[in-house]
Amino acid sequence: MSKGLIVQKYGGSSVANPERIKEVAKRVASYKKEGYDLVVVVSALGDTTDELIELAGQISQDPPEREMDMLMSTGEQISCALLAMAIEELGHDAISFTGGQVGIITDSTHTKARIVRIDARRIHNALKENKVVIVAGFQGVTKNEDITTLGRGGSDLTAVALTKTLNAKMCEIYTDVEGIFTSDPRVDRKAKKIDSITYDEMLEMASLGAQVMQARSIEVAKKFKIPIHVRSSFSTKEGTMIVNDSKKMEGVFVRGVTLNNKEAKLTICNVPDKPGIAAKIFEEISKVGVNVDMIVQNVSHTRQTDISFTVPRSELPQALAMTKKVARQIKAGDVLKDAHIARVSIIGVGMKSHPGIAAKMFKVLAENKINIEMISTSEISISCIVKQKLGKLAVKALDKKFNLIKR
Amino acid sequence: MSKGLIVQKYGGSSVANPERIKEVAKRVASYKKEGYDLVVVVSALGDTTDELIELAGQISQDPPEREMDMLMSTGEQISCALLAMAIEELGHDAISFTGGQVGIITDSTHTKARIVRIDARRIHNALKENKVVIVAGFQGVTKNEDITTLGRGGSDLTAVALTKTLNAKMCEIYTDVEGIFTSDPRVDRKAKKIDSITYDEMLEMASLGAQVMQARSIEVAKKFKIPIHVRSSFSTKEGTMIVNDSKKMEGVFVRGVTLNNKEAKLTICNVPDKPGIAAKIFEEISKVGVNVDMIVQNVSHTRQTDISFTVPRSELPQALAMTKKVARQIKAGDVLKDAHIARVSIIGVGMKSHPGIAAKMFKVLAENKINIEMISTSEISISCIVKQKLGKLAVKALDKKFNLIKR
Repeated sequence: MSKGLIVQKYGGSSVANPERIKEVAKRVASYKKEGYDLVVVVSALGDTTDELIELAGQISQDPPEREMDMLMSTGEQISCALLAMAIEELGHDAISFTGGQVGIITDSTHTKARIVRIDARRIHNALKENKVVIVAGFQGVTKNEDITTLGRGGSDLTAVALTKTLNAKMCEIYTDVEGIFTSDPRVDRKAKKIDSITYDEMLEMASLGAQVMQARSIEVAKKFKIPIHVRSSFSTKEGTMIVNDSKKMEGVFVRGVTLNNKEAKLTICNVPDKPGIAAKIFEEISKVGVNVDMIVQNVSHTRQTDISFTVPRSELPQALAMTKKVARQIKAGDVLKDAHIARVSIIGVGMKSHPGIAAKMFKVLAENKINIEMISTSEISISCIVKQKLGKLAVKALDKKFNLIKR
Repeated sequence: MSKGLIVQKYGGSSVANPERIKEVAKRVASYKKEGYDLVVVVSALGDTTDELIELAGQISQDPPEREMDMLMSTGEQISCALLAMAIEELGHDAISFTGGQVGIITDSTHTKARIVRIDARRIHNALKENKVVIVAGFQGVTKNEDITTLGRGGSDLTAVALTKTLNAKMCEIYTDVEGIFTSDPRVDRKAKKIDSITYDEMLEMASLGAQVMQARSIEVAKKFKIPIHVRSSFSTKEGTMIVNDSKKMEGVFVRGVTLNNKEAKLTICNVPDKPGIAAKIFEEISKVGVNVDMIVQNVSHTRQTDISFTVPRSELPQALAMTKKVARQIKAGDVLKDAHIARVSIIGVGMKSHPGIAAKMFKVLAENKINIEMISTSEISISCIVKQKLGKLAVKALDKKFNLIKR
C-alpha cells in the first residue's frame, strides 16, 4: 500500500555530474523503499543551460525565441534520461518524460511561457505500473506541439504545478543549501536556517534577491496552498517548510534580510510637479524594455520634485539614454546615475502592524554610519538603498539587531 | 516560382561547431536565393553523440534503450535549433523540428527503430510560408510519443525518407569527403572520385566498409529510385550521383575497392559433415547477439570439414566462448581465432558476367605476396580475407590493376 505521492525537484547543482545523479537516484530509491510513489522533476546538469546560451550566442546576437526554446529544452531532457538510467541501475522501474510527453501545455510566449493545463494521463499510467516518473523541468509544449520553456527557475514551477495536478501530499525542492536562511549565509556566516516560513514572506524573499526558489512558482503554491519543503540534496537534514500560516509567527516580526547588488539608481532632478508626468516617464522607459523596480518620489513643497528609481544594472545604458531624452521632453533638470548601490531589505508578515520596526531598521543603519539613499515599503517588507560597499555590513547589523543569527 | 524542392542532409563533421554551422547556413541561403525550396536534415554536432554515450556509460553499463533514445535524440535537436538560428541570421525564415514534430512515426525498436510512416503536414505548411525547414535527423517517435532513434547513420535515412514522402527532386548528402571514391583516399592517396554509381554497387560499398552512407538508407533510395548526390560541405565541387543505372557502366567492371579492418576470424576444425550442423552452429552463436558476417565452408572429401566465419572484432570474446561450447556439443575439433585480419573487397555490377575478374584479383594479390585466407563472392562483389598488415598494400595493388587511380 502506497504511503502517498511525493513530487521532488532537483536543481542543477544536485545533478551536476554522473556522480551527483547517482546520489539523487539513491535518495529516490530510499523513498521508494519506504513506500512512497514518486514524481521527480529535474533541471539541466550544472552549467548546461549557460553553455547552450553561449553556443547560441556564437551563432546569433538575437536568436528567434522559438529556436532558443528548442535548444534549451535539451538540457533537461538529458538529465531526466540519465536519472531514469541511474534509478533503473538500482533495481527500480523508472521512466523519463519531456514536458510535452507528460502533457504540460503552455501558451506560446517562448522563453517565458505560462502553463495552461496539464494532461497527466501518462504520469498516472506510469505510477500505476509502479514506475518512478522522471519529468524534464522548465519546459512544456504549445497546443501546436512547439517546445516552450518557463523562464529561469522554471523547474520549480513544473514541480509545483505537478504537485497540484497530481494532488500529491508534498513538494520537495532540493537545492545546494539547507533551506531558506534569515540572510545569505555567504554574506553573514551567522545567518540562521528558517524552519517554517509563509508563502508571502517567501515571495518577498524571492523577489528581493534570495535565489532559492522562482517567485512565480511560489505564487502558484500560495494560490493552491501546496506545502513545499526546501532542502539540501547533499544532506538528510530537514530544511524549510513553506506553508500558509507560520506556527512560530507570533512575536517574530522580521523573518529575513536580503541583499540585492544587481541594481543601479537613476534620479531625474527638478521634475515639474504635474499630473501625468510620472506616467509619461515610465511609459517611455518601458518602451526600451527596461524593467523599473523601486520608485521613490518625494512629496514636494515647490512646483518641482525629484524622482528616483532603480533598474537592473545590466540595463543601465539603455535606461540612462531614454531617461535623458524624457527629461528633456518634460523640461526637467539633470539626470543622475549611480551604479554602485545595494538594496537591503527586511521581511516579515508581522511588520506592518508594528510601526516600530521601520524606525528600528533605520536606527541600526545610522548606528553603523550607513546612509540611506532611498526607502520603499510594502505590505511585509522594508527596503533601503545604500552604498554598495556598505551592503554586507548592513545585512550583518540587521541580522544581529533582529535576532536572526545563531547564538 | 519555386525551382522545386531539395532535401539536404548535413553530417556531424559538417556542423561540428558554430563556424561550420554558419557555413552550412550560407550554402542553404544560396540555394534559397536561386529559387529552391529546402528541407534540411542535420546530424548532431561533431562528437556529441559519442559524448552522450560516454555520459550514459558513467551511469550504467546497460542503460534501458528507451532512455538511451531520450538522451541521444538531444544531439540532433541542438544542431537543428542552431542551424535555424544561423539561417534566420542571414535574413531567411527558418523553422526547426524534432522527428516527432514532423510526424516521423516509427516502430518501438528503440536505438534502431524503423520508420512506419511520415505525416508531413507541418513541413508542407512551413514550406508554404516560404520557410526553410530544418529537421533533426536520426529520430522519430512511436505512436505513443516515445522518442526513438534510427541507428548509426540514421540521419541519412531521415533524409531519404523525407525525399520520398515530399516527392522532392533530389536528396543531397553532405559529408567531409568529396563523394564516393574507388577506395578510401586515406588508404590510397591515388583513389579516384566516382562520378556516378548504382544503388547496388553503393550498397555493397557501404556494407563492405565504405562509411559514407548508411546501408539501410541506400536500400530505401533503391526501392523508390530516389536520386542521391553525395558531396562535400567543404567545397562546391560536384560529388557522386547514386542512380538506378550508371551511364558509364559498360566496359567498367570494378567500380571500387573497400577495406574493412574491424573483423576477426574464427575457424571450427573437423566439423562432422552432416545436414543441420551449420544451422546448429550459427543459431547458437546468434543467441549471444553476435553478428556473423562472412561464412566459408569447403566442400569436403572426407566426413569432416572446417567452417570459418568472421565476426565484429569487438564481439570476439562472446563469439569465441559460444563457438567453443558449440564445437564440444557437435563433437568438432579445435576452435582457432585470428583477430588480425583485413577484408579486401572489389565491387562492380558488371563483374558477375566476367569470370576473369576474380582470377585477376587473386593474381594481383599473389604477385604482391599476399596470402588469401578466405574468399567469398556475391552478385557484385568479391571479398578476400588477408593478414591485417597487408590490407593497405592489397587495396593499392587492386586500385592500380583495375585502373581506379588518378593518372
